Amino acid sequence: MRAALMYGAGDVRVETVPDPKLVQPTDALVRIVRACICGSDLHPYHQMTATAQGSPMGHEFVGIVEEIGAEVRTLKAGDFVIAPFAWSDNTCDFCREGFQTSCRHGGFWGRDGIGGGQAEAIRVPLADGTLVKAPVGQDSALLPSLLTLSDVFLTGHHAAVRGRVGPGAAVTVIGDGAVGLSAVLAAKRLGAERIILLGRHVSRTDLGREWGATDVVAERGDEAIAKVKDLTSGDGTPVVIEAVGLRLAYDTAVGVVRVGGTISRVGAPQYEDAPVGFGSLFGRNITLTGGPAPVRAYLEELLPEVLDGRLEPGKVFDRTVSLDGVPAAYQAMDARDALKVMVAP
Amino acid sequence: MRAALMYGAGDVRVETVPDPKLVQPTDALVRIVRACICGSDLHPYHQMTATAQGSPMGHEFVGIVEEIGAEVRTLKAGDFVIAPFAWSDNTCDFCREGFQTSCRHGGFWGRDGIGGGQAEAIRVPLADGTLVKAPVGQDSALLPSLLTLSDVFLTGHHAAVRGRVGPGAAVTVIGDGAVGLSAVLAAKRLGAERIILLGRHVSRTDLGREWGATDVVAERGDEAIAKVKDLTSGDGTPVVIEAVGLRLAYDTAVGVVRVGGTISRVGAPQYEDAPVGFGSLFGRNITLTGGPAPVRAYLEELLPEVLDGRLEPGKVFDRTVSLDGVPAAYQAMDARDALKVMVAP
Repeated sequence: MRAALMYGAGDVRVETVPDPKLVQPTDALVRIVRACICGSDLHPYHQMTATAQGSPMGHEFVGIVEEIGAEVRTLKAGDFVIAPFAWSDNTCDFCREGFQTSCRHGGFWGRDGIGGGQAEAIRVPLADGTLVKAPVGQDSALLPSLLTLSDVFLTGHHAAVRGRVGPGAAVTVIGDGAVGLSAVLAAKRLGAERIILLGRHVSRTDLGREWGATDVVAERGDEAIAKVKDLTSGDGTPVVIEAVGLRLAYDTAVGVVRVGGTISRVGAPQYEDAPVGFGSLFGRNITLTGGPAPVRAYLEELLPEVLDGRLEPGKVFDRTVSLDGVPAAYQAMDARDALKVMVAP
Repeated sequence: MRAALMYGAGDVRVETVPDPKLVQPTDALVRIVRACICGSDLHPYHQMTATAQGSPMGHEFVGIVEEIGAEVRTLKAGDFVIAPFAWSDNTCDFCREGFQTSCRHGGFWGRDGIGGGQAEAIRVPLADGTLVKAPVGQDSALLPSLLTLSDVFLTGHHAAVRGRVGPGAAVTVIGDGAVGLSAVLAAKRLGAERIILLGRHVSRTDLGREWGATDVVAERGDEAIAKVKDLTSGDGTPVVIEAVGLRLAYDTAVGVVRVGGTISRVGAPQYEDAPVGFGSLFGRNITLTGGPAPVRAYLEELLPEVLDGRLEPGKVFDRTVSLDGVPAAYQAMDARDALKVMVAP
């Protein structure tokens, strides 16, 4: 089959690789109907050390079950399924507590012998726990929105949930990438009344406004902090969602969070150390939360709202490519020509 | 009057200073009945650059109102009062949200022309907002426990509250100082069933056991982490209270917190930067919270339990000195000969 592999920074190739096969009796084989490229895929696209072997790419996909292992109970060939960006048994204590990204028996796509989503097909471990069925066909007009339940929209939702966004909340969202915009939609859905979106790409912030952003701040760094403070009587907002992952975004979050407030991070941090002491978090009783979204925990709750059209998170996709178009799609997302690219293998 | 001043690291002197006077119409003058020395007073005792003037010390006290300003409405001469370690109007939005340590018009003892608690008397700004009356006399047997409502016990309580300790909780408390032990008592009061106390001073950890610690770990650093993991099937506890303020304690907290758990800090951090990235907090969805305890927010709720004897947080005091004994008391606490010293001016 054909699959996208990354060999190093800026070096994505689409190649013929061995077809995936069932290995464990709990596996399912899934033919991929739609996949996509994640903002987090751009981090190795910038930084990855060149390798001889290449890494399978893509961790978001929807598809059709083609074959199941002997112990798979809840799925059958022909089922349309949504795959979370982490696979999990969905039964261990961490999963039951809602942290499927830390499943005791789970893992992540594209490593440990498991392929990536930017491919024609994939072996899904712990298929009963991992996959969520949806009552649609492979030609559904809902494919883009269903695909966002694999990661991006539910990552935005996780940010809002961990930030305890509720009715009347005031929220700053840092980042106008697909996750930041999804966080706007999720915060609005949870009842936020004021949503300040930090972003400078008008086509993106326009979607943010459509989804509930009440204010857009195009400035960055200290200027952004000053602008948000201007908008909030000098105090910032009780919730700040950090959907970028860079230190500058962390520092901006610290600068715009209100006394006693919460910074909820879902941008994978590209830094390890950051200020947490008296002058940043401690002195004003700021809470820092967030992490990889356990989308499996939220998927069944949000799926009906996508199926009935109340939610259209698929609007984050502004381009669709075939597998052969994947290398150029990385370039387009890196250059910010594309917000988020869908892959139709 | 006589008051304790710190002139530099290790240099505490008791001197005659001008008597405090009413300055603002919202002030009260309070004769101090009991004060104490805080673990956080040991930080300048270790680090303070020598000065010519000296800084008034002490931020915990109970006393008798001697005189009130023209605008004070809720107090009168002769009232017994408890003073939080921060003064506040208790009416601004930050106060109403429960963050009186960030009061828009408030401040801290021993600076900006306000004296310290290790003295015979003190001017209390915003007296109506700051002081809480208690129906006791100055010879009450409850003085030690009432004094802990000024800071130490309610700081432990804040740690437990921000860590969302509830019925059945499992909690690790890092630090067997007076705040750590208070956090044990507070966590137990809120329903914690498992409380692992990290501390190596047997007389202190014995009080911790009396107050609810189910396990005591005397090791430090990586050995402490290994021991706590041994006690918790390798997973750590969902709540970790960090009551020390040193980087080692932060790193220990990260090491013993369970997936999806919360680190609640109340030890004033003696560091600014610390790990918060994928390998420490983010990857496992760890929440970092805490800060200076808004004890004013909790004082009226907890006071009745001290008055009726259900709570005896005053057991943290293991020595009482006169004002002249204050310099030696700093030495004793620094040498860990004393857990917490009460001052009877």
